[in-house]
Amino acid sequence: MSEFDVIEKYFSSAAIKRDDVSLGIGDDCALLKPVAGYCVAVSTDTLIEGVHFPAQTNAIDIGYKALAVNLSDLAAMGAKPAWVTLAISLPDINAAWLNDFMLGFTDLAQQYQLSLVGGDTTRGPLSISITVMGLVEESQALKRSSAKVDDIILLTGTVGDAQLGLQAILESWNPDMFQWSINKLNRPEPAVNAGLSAAGIASSAIDISDGLLSDLGHICSQSKTGADIHLDKLPLSDELRRYYDTNIDWNSILNGGDDYVLCLTCQPQYYEGLKKRFEEKDLILYDIGTITQQTGVRCYLHGDIVPELTAEGYNHFAAKK
Amino acid sequence: MSEFDVIEKYFSSAAIKRDDVSLGIGDDCALLKPVAGYCVAVSTDTLIEGVHFPAQTNAIDIGYKALAVNLSDLAAMGAKPAWVTLAISLPDINAAWLNDFMLGFTDLAQQYQLSLVGGDTTRGPLSISITVMGLVEESQALKRSSAKVDDIILLTGTVGDAQLGLQAILESWNPDMFQWSINKLNRPEPAVNAGLSAAGIASSAIDISDGLLSDLGHICSQSKTGADIHLDKLPLSDELRRYYDTNIDWNSILNGGDDYVLCLTCQPQYYEGLKKRFEEKDLILYDIGTITQQTGVRCYLHGDIVPELTAEGYNHFAAKK
Repeated sequence: MSEFDVIEKYFSSAAIKRDDVSLGIGDDCALLKPVAGYCVAVSTDTLIEGVHFPAQTNAIDIGYKALAVNLSDLAAMGAKPAWVTLAISLPDINAAWLNDFMLGFTDLAQQYQLSLVGGDTTRGPLSISITVMGLVEESQALKRSSAKVDDIILLTGTVGDAQLGLQAILESWNPDMFQWSINKLNRPEPAVNAGLSAAGIASSAIDISDGLLSDLGHICSQSKTGADIHLDKLPLSDELRRYYDTNIDWNSILNGGDDYVLCLTCQPQYYEGLKKRFEEKDLILYDIGTITQQTGVRCYLHGDIVPELTAEGYNHFAAKK
Repeated sequence: MSEFDVIEKYFSSAAIKRDDVSLGIGDDCALLKPVAGYCVAVSTDTLIEGVHFPAQTNAIDIGYKALAVNLSDLAAMGAKPAWVTLAISLPDINAAWLNDFMLGFTDLAQQYQLSLVGGDTTRGPLSISITVMGLVEESQALKRSSAKVDDIILLTGTVGDAQLGLQAILESWNPDMFQWSINKLNRPEPAVNAGLSAAGIASSAIDISDGLLSDLGHICSQSKTGADIHLDKLPLSDELRRYYDTNIDWNSILNGGDDYVLCLTCQPQYYEGLKKRFEEKDLILYDIGTITQQTGVRCYLHGDIVPELTAEGYNHFAAKK
């Protein structure tokens, strides 16, 4: 099977029709027609076997997650998903694997009306590079650099689950006991609707890919502020609470990453309006702390500061998942 | 050195300022402001060590070529380069290697005022995925599907050099004897200016990445036409002619690929105008044949058909460079 046959067979299924695609897969370039006056939001992310997902991950989940982590970046900018390119390198052509991969990918692409407009397949170690593009009005975009002192810090979902799910897989725990966490690891739901609801009202946003402390740290350093967060207010899933019982591993929860919920900041006077928007769409917001003038990110538990919780983040070169 | 330090240090050097970049590297997404009424042309390509370049290729050349092959796709659409994202996976952080890679990349990016707006570094086997974006008016774009019977087939430069250069490297020939060809392999000049000059006047275009026969074959199949090409008229470099002398390996020249010149088609009545545009910019055009009603691509030598020259193309899954 030639490279072109592969592209034809598996990629065309994901070429969702959109009026703003003048030319899709099959030429030297795709031709896209953005809405006049809107910005094109662009993000690119690579997933590599053994680094971003365990080698035993099934192809449907890889296809889904590769797209989900990219959509999560659009979500964090408040952009509406529009187009995507997919570069995939494979050790060999395995029709069943590719079919499953594209099922996972297309499932999510269809959900957000995202059109696959460019593809490249090559032979090599398994890796997936995706560039996702969306649309947002410039004045509505959720930048990392515009958090202000006294802003409320918010999360759009629970944190720590994916890290627990990864541990469960790597240490071969009974998967039935960790279904929620494993699902959060393999099938994270990108917070696209939350990002769209927050656009133009929240002051800043980031998606939690490297861990809350590290990612909130980016907002703080780019906004030249700091943050106080209250661990008692952190949204934790029932499964995670059950597993940790009274001995919660905060380090894993705060630095594990792969959560793909949004961390938002919002000026107090706009918070009611933001909550209303979220409620109207059945979305949840958790207030977890406050942006401060004092730089750095500090964690409090029952009112006391926890000095050992520092922003470590996840470093692909230092640690291998 | 953390992933963020790497991005900061090496990528920011390539973040050329453009007025249409509202937000560059460092946030969840870049924010781009395309000219109203223009299409965004998008293409993505991956280069993998051992597949797309020999393992001994130096980092400057890899950085240059990774971008050149992507710019070549914009050229083949007649689009003006604007923005690029770079996803790179590395076995480890080698400061000297990264520095050289970015030198080669930035050299070319600056030449075309291309701004690096997104980057992702991960640990893994060496591979580079680039998504390049440019601007073109919809009516001016050079699609593969619009060649017409009796159109003149044109090339913007010589073919076969890169394949000869690759052979020289892999078989350790005296590099001094094959400098031109090795340079064509490692530092192909993307035909951006030729593409811009052809936009709106040529009927179709493709860049020669897989070999002339295969790539012209794409124009023919997408335009539902065929082609007659005359090998006597094929532009060949002095170095290549000297090497082959009277025993030219047409198969290697026509199917070797990696040439990155453009193959254009042009209606006869527009040919003089096209030539004039090219002459004004000191660009060359070689007339090599004619688009035919009869499908398939046929090669003629001294007026006789050469039946054994069929469109093989280069298949990354079938052959490993």
